[in-house]
Amino acid sequence: MPGFETVDEVLGWLDVQRERMTMTARPIPLEDLRNWHLDPVSGNLGHESGKFFSVEGVRVTDPAGPVPAWDQPIIHQPEIGILGILADRSRIGPTRFLMQAKFEPGNPGGVQLSPTVQATRSNYLRVHGGRPVPYLEHFRDVDPESVLADVRQSEQGAWFFRKRNRNMIVESRDAIEPREGFCWVGLPLLLQLLHVPDLLNMDARTVLACAPPEALAGVETVGGGARSGSLSWITDQRTGTELTAELIPLNETARWRLDDGMIRHDSGGHFTILGVEVTATGREVSSWHQPMLAPTGPGIVGALVTREGGTVSVLMRSRTEPGCTDGAELGPTVQCQPDTLERHPERLAPPFLDRFLSPEPGSVRFDVVQSEEGGRFYFARNRYMVVEIDGRLPAPAGFRWFGLDEISDFMRHSFYLNVQARSIALCLTSLVAAHA
Amino acid sequence: MPGFETVDEVLGWLDVQRERMTMTARPIPLEDLRNWHLDPVSGNLGHESGKFFSVEGVRVTDPAGPVPAWDQPIIHQPEIGILGILADRSRIGPTRFLMQAKFEPGNPGGVQLSPTVQATRSNYLRVHGGRPVPYLEHFRDVDPESVLADVRQSEQGAWFFRKRNRNMIVESRDAIEPREGFCWVGLPLLLQLLHVPDLLNMDARTVLACAPPEALAGVETVGGGARSGSLSWITDQRTGTELTAELIPLNETARWRLDDGMIRHDSGGHFTILGVEVTATGREVSSWHQPMLAPTGPGIVGALVTREGGTVSVLMRSRTEPGCTDGAELGPTVQCQPDTLERHPERLAPPFLDRFLSPEPGSVRFDVVQSEEGGRFYFARNRYMVVEIDGRLPAPAGFRWFGLDEISDFMRHSFYLNVQARSIALCLTSLVAAHA
Repeated sequence: MPGFETVDEVLGWLDVQRERMTMTARPIPLEDLRNWHLDPVSGNLGHESGKFFSVEGVRVTDPAGPVPAWDQPIIHQPEIGILGILADRSRIGPTRFLMQAKFEPGNPGGVQLSPTVQATRSNYLRVHGGRPVPYLEHFRDVDPESVLADVRQSEQGAWFFRKRNRNMIVESRDAIEPREGFCWVGLPLLLQLLHVPDLLNMDARTVLACAPPEALAGVETVGGGARSGSLSWITDQRTGTELTAELIPLNETARWRLDDGMIRHDSGGHFTILGVEVTATGREVSSWHQPMLAPTGPGIVGALVTREGGTVSVLMRSRTEPGCTDGAELGPTVQCQPDTLERHPERLAPPFLDRFLSPEPGSVRFDVVQSEEGGRFYFARNRYMVVEIDGRLPAPAGFRWFGLDEISDFMRHSFYLNVQARSIALCLTSLVAAHA
Repeated sequence: MPGFETVDEVLGWLDVQRERMTMTARPIPLEDLRNWHLDPVSGNLGHESGKFFSVEGVRVTDPAGPVPAWDQPIIHQPEIGILGILADRSRIGPTRFLMQAKFEPGNPGGVQLSPTVQATRSNYLRVHGGRPVPYLEHFRDVDPESVLADVRQSEQGAWFFRKRNRNMIVESRDAIEPREGFCWVGLPLLLQLLHVPDLLNMDARTVLACAPPEALAGVETVGGGARSGSLSWITDQRTGTELTAELIPLNETARWRLDDGMIRHDSGGHFTILGVEVTATGREVSSWHQPMLAPTGPGIVGALVTREGGTVSVLMRSRTEPGCTDGAELGPTVQCQPDTLERHPERLAPPFLDRFLSPEPGSVRFDVVQSEEGGRFYFARNRYMVVEIDGRLPAPAGFRWFGLDEISDFMRHSFYLNVQARSIALCLTSLVAAHA
């Protein structure tokens, strides 16, 4: 099977997959969720099997932050899942990746291009009694020598409590004929597809971001990895973190309440926890219910970059979020949800936001809306932007410029880059590759 | 000030320091500890200020391990302290480090050679109202460009609950005349001093182990850092870990009891929690009491190494301990306490122990007793051994061979190598340097 050559071929194939799957998702009251239990004492939402995930409360203190203390609901899913992509380097030409057309209830458009395997531990141990996960065998008991990337990474620390997934890229040793719903896509085409809104799902973006430079043919890899000064700055940010986050009963979270079948903040901002009924014909089971987290508005994820002496640098911000496993991680220059900022006029807009909301003419290099994890988040979308400026402006406290070669080095290790930063790094890769 | 040139000069200077300090430590019953509180409900031991550290209980489950569940006391000290060494590279010749003659109550010999700064957060915030920590200013608000190493690392995961310290090596910009009790020592001499028992304290060893290869003149640095296959193997070990550790009241720990002024295990093995009265004339305060952890016997920390094609490889074992912050870390080939093994005949000796207890003639490259942290542990000593074998023997499950260049790369990041492995890596550096 030759794989696809053009964006239109992939879009056409995805349309066919959408018809094949015919799945729908619709909001329902939390109280009506089948197989889910609203604990009368704690208010926590959990699955009757005790598996999958739960929605609990978290109490956060951040004495040095703009908001020194708050409560919020958070998704608790302590298992480490597998996000894996099979790679094929057996042919002359760019590395090809085995992608899946996958429906997720929270994704705009439903079906997006996903990793070969995207499985929670519950999934692959088949807690729900579903069918086996296709291609999973390539990612379990794997030969370390055929691994291109294999690293535990965090996911949204504002919404997940210490969620980690294993991001894997494994080279297939044998020729693989894709099953129905799967296809081979070469790297240059994947990077073009990143410029189409809501097409490469979040899991695909985070895994591809972890690909080593040598698998990203045509992409610059100058430099020698993370500098000591950069590592020291990160250690300092992490040591200085005073944020604490402690799980509490969901019904003890101040300013959040269950109302009209949903859990909402009294400001109307941030996000809502709602119930969703999914009806499916092409998935493991034909219908299920689940709670989801729905942000009240789209976000902005923006990176300021500059080009000096042939290398690209990006301005990163140290971010500690309630769900971080090990203190601060590096986020993009800007990461915020404008609708919620507007509801809290007492809070200052984050530095550099204007560079993205009102960019200088000709400075925007990337501007595409992408969606976040569609299995837990309901229509969570961010506008990913890369804005180029002329030279490194001075970095305020909590910000620092990093070279792309440093970013590549961080990607090999856990918990340096948050999930938004990993997505934006892939956008940068696509820009650099387009110029190569 | 020229610094020292020979081992004898340093030993002579330390003898002078010992007389200058005249400190003693003697065991006393836990109930008699001044300023410490044995909580009548939980049995936990804490300082009346709420600072310093506490001794609590931990309940551990490790379904896949040789002992599937146990309780034990553990030292809880959530603060991140600073272990810092000032470096001088202003002169032609090897890098020199500013070392301190420091008394710790649990150190055999009392005074050992320590980092420039060795300060808990309570220390440097002066919770106990003592004098300011000398040279601390070089390690706070540091210029990232003068940093040679700066990384949070774990300490004994069997005895500390998620203890982390910041290991720093900072280049001094100005010529520094050592205060009383401090001296400059060049790297080659420090590596020779490592061959003297109980002389370089644990904190000095872990910080020096984090020095980048370019600061370790004459030491081989071939290779390109951690291989993808190695990182994947580590990710797999960490993902597979099922050990859980939860703090519990100390008086609910099964098989441990307060008896005769100490807390002991009913087997008589593992360790004892005892009280210590320290009387000092050369330290911040003239007398204090504190609890300490005293192992019931010395340990063995051993590394099997081999030399192939000019590079050295070491056989490491993945270890998950109750106090690990983020799952498994790499430990040495063997790390155990023989007296406790003998008390538990139902437990198998760890693989390869015989290679250290009854080594092949001519295979021992390093064999020196070193002491562990003398501020919390009372006469905790390990016999550090390096045994060379002829070629890589097959690594059993949980073991893997790593090149020294990979070890160097791991040292730049948190939580890859446990404290015993970092000490043994410094021993390897001293051996390689001696041959360079």
